[in-house]
Amino acid sequence: MPDLEDVTFLLPGPVKLHPRVLRALSLPSMPHRSPEFTAALGHLTEGLKEVFGTFQDVTVLSGSGTAGMEAAVGSLVKKGDRVVALSNGKFGERMADISALHGDAVRVTAPWGQGFDLGEVERALKGGETKALTFVLNETSTGVMNQGKEIAWLAREHGALVIMDAVTAVGSVPVPVDEWGVDVCIVGSQKCLAAPPGLAFLSVSEEAYSRLHRFSYYLDLKKHIDKTRAGSTPFTPAVPLYLAATEAIRIALEEGLDARYERTRRMADATRAAATALGLELYAAEDVRSDTVTAIRYPDVPDAEKAIRGRMKDAHGVLVAGGQDEVKGRIFRIGHMANARPEELAGCFHALESCLIEAGHDFVPGAGTGALVRAFSRAPDAAVASGRSA
Amino acid sequence: MPDLEDVTFLLPGPVKLHPRVLRALSLPSMPHRSPEFTAALGHLTEGLKEVFGTFQDVTVLSGSGTAGMEAAVGSLVKKGDRVVALSNGKFGERMADISALHGDAVRVTAPWGQGFDLGEVERALKGGETKALTFVLNETSTGVMNQGKEIAWLAREHGALVIMDAVTAVGSVPVPVDEWGVDVCIVGSQKCLAAPPGLAFLSVSEEAYSRLHRFSYYLDLKKHIDKTRAGSTPFTPAVPLYLAATEAIRIALEEGLDARYERTRRMADATRAAATALGLELYAAEDVRSDTVTAIRYPDVPDAEKAIRGRMKDAHGVLVAGGQDEVKGRIFRIGHMANARPEELAGCFHALESCLIEAGHDFVPGAGTGALVRAFSRAPDAAVASGRSA
Repeated sequence: MPDLEDVTFLLPGPVKLHPRVLRALSLPSMPHRSPEFTAALGHLTEGLKEVFGTFQDVTVLSGSGTAGMEAAVGSLVKKGDRVVALSNGKFGERMADISALHGDAVRVTAPWGQGFDLGEVERALKGGETKALTFVLNETSTGVMNQGKEIAWLAREHGALVIMDAVTAVGSVPVPVDEWGVDVCIVGSQKCLAAPPGLAFLSVSEEAYSRLHRFSYYLDLKKHIDKTRAGSTPFTPAVPLYLAATEAIRIALEEGLDARYERTRRMADATRAAATALGLELYAAEDVRSDTVTAIRYPDVPDAEKAIRGRMKDAHGVLVAGGQDEVKGRIFRIGHMANARPEELAGCFHALESCLIEAGHDFVPGAGTGALVRAFSRAPDAAVASGRSA
Repeated sequence: MPDLEDVTFLLPGPVKLHPRVLRALSLPSMPHRSPEFTAALGHLTEGLKEVFGTFQDVTVLSGSGTAGMEAAVGSLVKKGDRVVALSNGKFGERMADISALHGDAVRVTAPWGQGFDLGEVERALKGGETKALTFVLNETSTGVMNQGKEIAWLAREHGALVIMDAVTAVGSVPVPVDEWGVDVCIVGSQKCLAAPPGLAFLSVSEEAYSRLHRFSYYLDLKKHIDKTRAGSTPFTPAVPLYLAATEAIRIALEEGLDARYERTRRMADATRAAATALGLELYAAEDVRSDTVTAIRYPDVPDAEKAIRGRMKDAHGVLVAGGQDEVKGRIFRIGHMANARPEELAGCFHALESCLIEAGHDFVPGAGTGALVRAFSRAPDAAVASGRSA
């Protein structure tokens, strides 16, 4: 396999870090109880408010997105509290497991690759006094973007707090937290915001804040918010990750959020067009396809996982993700979030086509890469499409 | 204040990072589900076993030392379980609070700056069937090194699991975990091992492993150990911190653990001698003084905190820590752990003496720095004393 420095990353996270972010990671040691750290934290939280579209509190946890999910759920629900937990993929399942661990979870499921039946969601909400609804906005495992606004509005209409995992959405697609009325939104650092892994970002509404309780010493969301308000952290923060995340968000804001969302949408459209042109089938249903990750069924060729994804990595230095859990070996996933560029996508499809030919899949060579060229040159303003508008 | 790149850090953590560790932080993005990450994790855990003096399991959490404390306590005790929680400082108090949150804590306290009365510890252990004893080995807030071996042995003698926070000890003083019979030992990355903040390292005995239960989704210690055994992590790890910690531990092992312990002991002796030579009083009782952090009472001068510690930072670029909680404004603390060098200590006492003169404290100028010279030149092998033996 080529050296990690040379590979093309098109994973649904972690994503490749910008050299400016790498430099921020290796700034000299900064004590966390210092005016310098307080200033950095202020820049970080201000930037986060902008990408979350919120005027409410935001906070940062040293831990993964899952730590953020548990901090949110555990701080808001306890045994005896009814929680409607939506699940249609690996991460929805995780959110439901966490909801079941801390509260009384009523699961609403949909088949993997499909969105939710909103009527079923409503019936579940009506089934009893519901303290909270939990769901995953962008289901990374299946390439499904769930119906965020509709689900959040339904939950609020029925008096439930809305806890939303938007780990692979915020930063690459619009997620207007306040407009949707989301009470807690959770994001991981290493996805659409292109920061290193290891931090969780959360927004918390006033209503949610007033109902927080302490279930954990470390994952106590109220303590994190109170300390963030005071320009500090309750426990030793992972300082280098904070500095790198601050720089990553600065880069996103320099590009401009609207330009970023537009670029991501076009990357997604192009990926879907190119895969279809190769005679491959998209895994997610048409009405809920994600703009940050595309899941594609393997064609019917021998040992597809190894012949396609394995060989893309080993022979071409292109990293895409496999399927997880129930779709392991059946799909592969291309991430086109954060700072991914059309040229990287072109390299990815170049490698994919080579592997498909070798594997014996029948298609017109160049059909995928050609579809990409057409998708990106269709634009009246080609500069935007190439992601160089900033 | 001088730029952070130029300052002398003599805090009881975070400590200054070696340039090699800074370079490891900014290695290119590495996906965590990759053979490369598995290899790095293997190097890290092997190194940790060596510094912990253990043949048992070790694991790594993306979170602070407090996350590690809660993972240990919460995974081993639940409501109804009697826990003897020793507290003689801020971190012992935190450990006792965590013990009280998850189990039924019986606190044994000692005055800040003093060690524990072992007779009292034994009476507490005899007071009922005790599931676990929790304590902090090196109390960073007071500069007290508690009686680790004796406390651990007492607990085991009474059938209690031993959960020890050794956050500011492992890596700079000998902490033979297996020899002492410690069931769970918790260490923070940013202290004596000189890695960046944001990771907790834990060792877990077979006995403790067999008794772990799930109290949290993220802080589930069993899940972390099982995944570590398989060369992976249960959740997205903070990859850059893992790579940096691996390099930091490599540096410690290159120096040699015995040489490192000897250097630390001499740094501590020298600090105590120099402070005493300036007519300052050490805060910790003589029989329990820590080798990694020295707490010193401020002399009776006006506005001591600002005139001494504040001015050491602002005018001299030397960072030492203040007192916390009940000793805030009454003591300051010099950290001499990890890679701190005698020459940095000399700079620190140079600044301290200048500030003491200006504040009106009466002493012979040069008495402190002179004591340091004497302490370090007394050695038959001066190379070891200067920390250059590696």
